[in-house]
Amino acid sequence: MVKSWVPDLDPSSDFSLANIPFGIISTRDDPSLRPAVAIGSYALDLKLLSQQPDFSTVFPSLKGHESVFSEHSLNAFAALGRPVHSEVRKTLQNLLAEDTTHPAFLRNNVDLRRTALLPQGEVKMHIPMDIGDYTDFYAGYHHAYRAGVLFRGPNNALQPNYTHLPVGYHGRSSSIVVSRTPVIRPVGQILLDPTAVPKQPVVGPSRKLDFELEFGCFISTPNAMGQHITVAEAEQHIFGYVLLNDWSARDIQSWEYVPLGPFNGKNFASTISSWVVLADALEPFRTGGIENTIPLLDYLKEGRAENVFDIHLEADLTTPEGDTTTITKTSSKYLIWSFPQMIAHHTLGGCPMRTGDLLGSGTISGPGESEMGSLLEMTEAGKKDIMLPGMDTRKFLKDGDTVTLRGFCGDHGSRVGFGECAGRIFSTRQ
Amino acid sequence: MVKSWVPDLDPSSDFSLANIPFGIISTRDDPSLRPAVAIGSYALDLKLLSQQPDFSTVFPSLKGHESVFSEHSLNAFAALGRPVHSEVRKTLQNLLAEDTTHPAFLRNNVDLRRTALLPQGEVKMHIPMDIGDYTDFYAGYHHAYRAGVLFRGPNNALQPNYTHLPVGYHGRSSSIVVSRTPVIRPVGQILLDPTAVPKQPVVGPSRKLDFELEFGCFISTPNAMGQHITVAEAEQHIFGYVLLNDWSARDIQSWEYVPLGPFNGKNFASTISSWVVLADALEPFRTGGIENTIPLLDYLKEGRAENVFDIHLEADLTTPEGDTTTITKTSSKYLIWSFPQMIAHHTLGGCPMRTGDLLGSGTISGPGESEMGSLLEMTEAGKKDIMLPGMDTRKFLKDGDTVTLRGFCGDHGSRVGFGECAGRIFSTRQ
Repeated sequence: MVKSWVPDLDPSSDFSLANIPFGIISTRDDPSLRPAVAIGSYALDLKLLSQQPDFSTVFPSLKGHESVFSEHSLNAFAALGRPVHSEVRKTLQNLLAEDTTHPAFLRNNVDLRRTALLPQGEVKMHIPMDIGDYTDFYAGYHHAYRAGVLFRGPNNALQPNYTHLPVGYHGRSSSIVVSRTPVIRPVGQILLDPTAVPKQPVVGPSRKLDFELEFGCFISTPNAMGQHITVAEAEQHIFGYVLLNDWSARDIQSWEYVPLGPFNGKNFASTISSWVVLADALEPFRTGGIENTIPLLDYLKEGRAENVFDIHLEADLTTPEGDTTTITKTSSKYLIWSFPQMIAHHTLGGCPMRTGDLLGSGTISGPGESEMGSLLEMTEAGKKDIMLPGMDTRKFLKDGDTVTLRGFCGDHGSRVGFGECAGRIFSTRQ
Repeated sequence: MVKSWVPDLDPSSDFSLANIPFGIISTRDDPSLRPAVAIGSYALDLKLLSQQPDFSTVFPSLKGHESVFSEHSLNAFAALGRPVHSEVRKTLQNLLAEDTTHPAFLRNNVDLRRTALLPQGEVKMHIPMDIGDYTDFYAGYHHAYRAGVLFRGPNNALQPNYTHLPVGYHGRSSSIVVSRTPVIRPVGQILLDPTAVPKQPVVGPSRKLDFELEFGCFISTPNAMGQHITVAEAEQHIFGYVLLNDWSARDIQSWEYVPLGPFNGKNFASTISSWVVLADALEPFRTGGIENTIPLLDYLKEGRAENVFDIHLEADLTTPEGDTTTITKTSSKYLIWSFPQMIAHHTLGGCPMRTGDLLGSGTISGPGESEMGSLLEMTEAGKKDIMLPGMDTRKFLKDGDTVTLRGFCGDHGSRVGFGECAGRIFSTRQ
């Protein structure tokens, strides 16, 4: 295991030398938004690095592109493509290693270390990408099945198209927020008694506010309108990954979603983790996804069995009183469709992907009772309670509750993790 | 009727002095994208105007904001809010009037007239707004009913929620293109025989490519996340209107859309007209929409009967051989929900609207046989043909076909129109 000279590197940190995730920071001294990478409990200011005279000697692949690290989002860097991301990540791993081959640039440069290596507690994190479009898929097989049973009964739980194509819908990019942004309980039309005739909705704060444990990927390089990205090419269009909580108001959603899909039940907030884990960092953690029961159409066939990642995922619920319970533990491997398959399907008809577009996996749940990625599943749509410390219970989220998603893979000392994806529920505006 | 000094002003022009729509142009001499307004057969270059020394004297509401007319989109101008749009439109009407009160600024300024008043044939039109999110509603009652009959039969044609809320879905902003952009026939999964067991889709070019005649509105000023825009406030958040063709691949759509809504059947292209007609320009053409059969919930109640516009809409189909037939004539009044109602519903749960967001009305059809806004309706989903000149027929669109939407209101000489919203179908990429 390569060691780093960075101080206080806790071996349980998500941000080991094996990770090097990218984010957008600001500080009190410099409120401008700018790129950084996370290493242990520090953020390394890439704008400051890029202003060093020998920057392009150390980062030759960024020669002429130094300005990507002075941007307010990671889009310009992402648009340079995966070979550049790989190269830059390797160089950063080198610079941060105890036995770096460029000791003078950072390790021995006391001034630069003091100004560029910032304790994460002193930086503010911002939304890392300018997100053009957000698409949420439904590839978490166990979630799709259980949710289908609850919405439509066991005979129609999975629609006939589910195993033939990665079902997805266009989400709302304006409501994507970064971890720790407050989430305001949405007001909406709700059908209190679905059996009443005629149906009469009321307007009020959602009574069935839920979280959804998801995994998301950002697009790096675009395709032109009318051009298909093949499943084999798709990896080259992926910049990196984040955790995603696609908050859902189940009561609003169940009344509105027929026939055109989820709308106000989703578009009040979707939270992503702050740091984008580059695609390269997850390569060692490949595994096989959920096997499909039917032969795939050619454009969805991948030339490899290990098409998803085995990332340990969990969700904590913290009550207004401050008690925290881990309410689910699962894995990102429980997908019936991989991101390359999602991208191949999304662009089959020529839909243009742009740098910064976000694709969500859909809620990820494992097969077991303790592996469910939403309260909808855990409480069977509110039919039963989950137990929290001190005789407290939940069917859905209460005002003041915080949901924190976490995800990591790799061994102690070389973990590749996402940090937290957290949001606290605030009461409806008055 | 106020007369203009602009030469060759054809009284049948969509762009009379009563209109003054805004767009984004470039020219051979100056390839930079910049705002302009249309007047008759000319485009008036607003960037050049804004660089005149006495600009802020003539346009006092833009003092300090002159740079909005040097932007590559109308977003910065739109963000200034409706009072500024009103003021600027009035000033432009004054400048272009025969008896302008500022004759020296433009009418008598031979140099500026020569450089700023450009024949529309010599300018290239671009997408007028940076579109963050695109939402398409389903407010065209007669279309929703007829499409519902075809997809789900007469008993479930309109879902129970249809009359309670403006049903809509999140569309794809990356695939919105400006009039005259080629439209490539999408490839997709298609279920050739929906009755076969088991269902087995094939992959191929859409055989059921359709147009949708819609009307769209652009958002001017944003709301903060968690803030509701009331139906009374909504008009102040509308910048202007365009025609919208939400091209639809019916065979792809019908297989994919359950349960999360339309996806690849729509996201290959949506075409908008080039010029944005400001909200003020349509005020004289208000009328009542389709009356709802049920009492509205409070947040959807408008304090006025005249909540939609009566704009004459039509669609032409031009064959590859060049024969043009007007295949439908209808009106923008056939909506059961107004744009203020759509905005009030969209933001009810706190969803943030951003400057440049586009809302579509959904396909607009009248009650009559000759007033249908899609081929789906005209041909009963391909069960019968429509007749074109020379014994030619269509069930859906052929490669080489062009669909041109037009829309206008007002009298000869003072028409307020949208120009054309056109797209030609090209064969699937090889």
